[in-house]
Amino acid sequence: MSPDLAVTSSTPSAPAIVRVGVIGIGNMGSTHARTILSGAIPGAELAAVCDIRESMRQWTAEQLSPNIAFWSDSEQMMQSGTIDAVLLATPHDDHARQAMIAFQHGLHVLVEKPAGVSTAQVRQMNDAAVAAPSSVFAIMYNQRTNPVYRKLRELIQSGELGEIRRMNWIITTWYRPQSYYDSGGWRATWAGEGGGVLINQCPHQLDLLQWTTGMMPERIRAFCRFGRYRDIEVEDDVTAYAEYANGASAVFITTTGEAPGTNRLEMTGDRGKIVIENDQLTFWRLRESEPAFNSRYTGKFGSPECWQCDIPVEGEETGHPGIIRNWIDAIRYGTPLLSPGAEGIHGLTLSNAMLLSTWTDGWVELPLNEQQFTDELEQRRQNSVYKPGSTVEPEDVPADLSGTFK
Amino acid sequence: MSPDLAVTSSTPSAPAIVRVGVIGIGNMGSTHARTILSGAIPGAELAAVCDIRESMRQWTAEQLSPNIAFWSDSEQMMQSGTIDAVLLATPHDDHARQAMIAFQHGLHVLVEKPAGVSTAQVRQMNDAAVAAPSSVFAIMYNQRTNPVYRKLRELIQSGELGEIRRMNWIITTWYRPQSYYDSGGWRATWAGEGGGVLINQCPHQLDLLQWTTGMMPERIRAFCRFGRYRDIEVEDDVTAYAEYANGASAVFITTTGEAPGTNRLEMTGDRGKIVIENDQLTFWRLRESEPAFNSRYTGKFGSPECWQCDIPVEGEETGHPGIIRNWIDAIRYGTPLLSPGAEGIHGLTLSNAMLLSTWTDGWVELPLNEQQFTDELEQRRQNSVYKPGSTVEPEDVPADLSGTFK
Repeated sequence: MSPDLAVTSSTPSAPAIVRVGVIGIGNMGSTHARTILSGAIPGAELAAVCDIRESMRQWTAEQLSPNIAFWSDSEQMMQSGTIDAVLLATPHDDHARQAMIAFQHGLHVLVEKPAGVSTAQVRQMNDAAVAAPSSVFAIMYNQRTNPVYRKLRELIQSGELGEIRRMNWIITTWYRPQSYYDSGGWRATWAGEGGGVLINQCPHQLDLLQWTTGMMPERIRAFCRFGRYRDIEVEDDVTAYAEYANGASAVFITTTGEAPGTNRLEMTGDRGKIVIENDQLTFWRLRESEPAFNSRYTGKFGSPECWQCDIPVEGEETGHPGIIRNWIDAIRYGTPLLSPGAEGIHGLTLSNAMLLSTWTDGWVELPLNEQQFTDELEQRRQNSVYKPGSTVEPEDVPADLSGTFK
Repeated sequence: MSPDLAVTSSTPSAPAIVRVGVIGIGNMGSTHARTILSGAIPGAELAAVCDIRESMRQWTAEQLSPNIAFWSDSEQMMQSGTIDAVLLATPHDDHARQAMIAFQHGLHVLVEKPAGVSTAQVRQMNDAAVAAPSSVFAIMYNQRTNPVYRKLRELIQSGELGEIRRMNWIITTWYRPQSYYDSGGWRATWAGEGGGVLINQCPHQLDLLQWTTGMMPERIRAFCRFGRYRDIEVEDDVTAYAEYANGASAVFITTTGEAPGTNRLEMTGDRGKIVIENDQLTFWRLRESEPAFNSRYTGKFGSPECWQCDIPVEGEETGHPGIIRNWIDAIRYGTPLLSPGAEGIHGLTLSNAMLLSTWTDGWVELPLNEQQFTDELEQRRQNSVYKPGSTVEPEDVPADLSGTFK
């Protein structure tokens, strides 16, 4: 069946199988390919994989299945008519271009995070998606399936936390030794990845910061340090400060250089505060809102009555398979997307702005000056030690990444 | 006996009594006066109090003792020969001037925090202290008696935490309603206090940040918000970022506008991390230092072995009485000061730099340009709604502050 039929189908009887092609079978792509191959995604079939490394042809036959078509040219695969949908797990910088080709061929797209390296290219991708409304476009923000962040979002969106005042996320549980960076010449280079911890490890947190609150900042001042802990070109240590239209502020701290690291998110609103740490959510709730207390209280040293509340957090973190399943369900049944592809630009905007603020040593106002970011990045690409195309890296054998992504 | 004799005495037999005069019997001064009067400080006698408000003469006789001399002119008291030592609990801006008069008269000095409003005036005070070596000069950094911070300092100074990499202090447990600010026309004005949460609530934390680590930053970029939550002139919300010579960074967050607030200090070193929250210290210690692990490790995704350690924190927080006792012991026996007066300038430097960075919307390098700070502050004093001397405020009856200071 054609993708068009698939997307318009909304009959309760199960529509036909969605034939998926996975482009890029490195660490993440091979994991996703195996997930689909295992039958864990109802209605999805792993029809083909694609990798520019010819060596992966044999790997595919041996490690996945001899029945999976192997392509070394993604465009040929996309125009072959043998697939309905593509899952893009290629280097960040290829996402936008490949997604746009997919849209041209009427394919559905699930893109790995980040959406791309610069918001300029991601905006083009998003525009192309709008022009291809029959294509279901999603992004692999699998942390949106995490029940604690879903609960946080619900508590904010329903008004329980009140008006947001402050966000503070310390996310430093990304320890990477030098040997990690040395495992691929493209790693942690401007030409190879276009960024460091912000683009590689943190896209989920940058997404959640805006997805849970529904807020994007007005301006950002950030302090990225490049190669502070490792012999790399890009940022491995970041402190960023952001201000929002409603007066709220945020601090975002990340690094790949610290052990054991911390993952602690604190959100303050005028009805109290929520802390998520060790995958536990705690809500200190004010009995009345702080402004209401303040306006009626005449004593000098009192404060609003506060209740420490145990909040039930229910449901399972379905992770990558959950996002793939939701995408396939959206294709087959019109199920609303948990993680629409067009939303990938928000977290990337934060990331681009943090780099640009550091490069210019000043405030970055949003909306971002995308051309300025692109120009600054391009300078660094030109001077990068990595020359794209000079080698056929990533490592030949996909690594077991269990537990290393969040 | 003369102060000179007191300070040079180091005989094991108890030297004579130190006659203390307390200047300023507002909230803090009256508390300290009562502490001395109660006999809780061996070797100290409350000989006199001083307050510019004549109305406090009767209060002193009724609430303290009819035997306590009352002065309304501090200089007259200091040159009277009836006291050996002064405890300064006057408005911040008077500390330096009064301390210098005390040094001229050979008196010992214990100054309330902050040391002053600007480092320029505090530097003058410190110079005067150097010129009066027989005067024992201390500052009321009573949080230095808190066993958790003493332990943190010991773990850092002894090298257990390794080289410091990051500090993160969220100290937002300072909730103050508008009625607090409205209780004195001088409160939270540039002319009356010379600052807000940084100068009034946070001096202890700003002191501990440098006292526990022994480190002062090279440069600071801060984001103070003035009157964000309350109808006041000064800052009630601060986020500050600092960088140190060894590459470490720090984030310091404070406000008087949030409830219930947080007091969480995280210190990361190359041997692990320490978190102090809810007055509990936890140490996650790496079995080998992070750089050592990194240099020998060849896997891609490993990290140093980490032990969560329960660290005994012993001793009692002796608070204000502990600092007063230590000061008296230093006068009588030459006991080393826990909180030497000259060290008050360090925390104030951080505070001044945070304001100056906000006013200039840029980096502030240390050592601080003290003249620039003084000039910027003076502009704001000129435009302040509060006109010093126009009223004889603070409130007449000292409030019970139990539990409001830290």
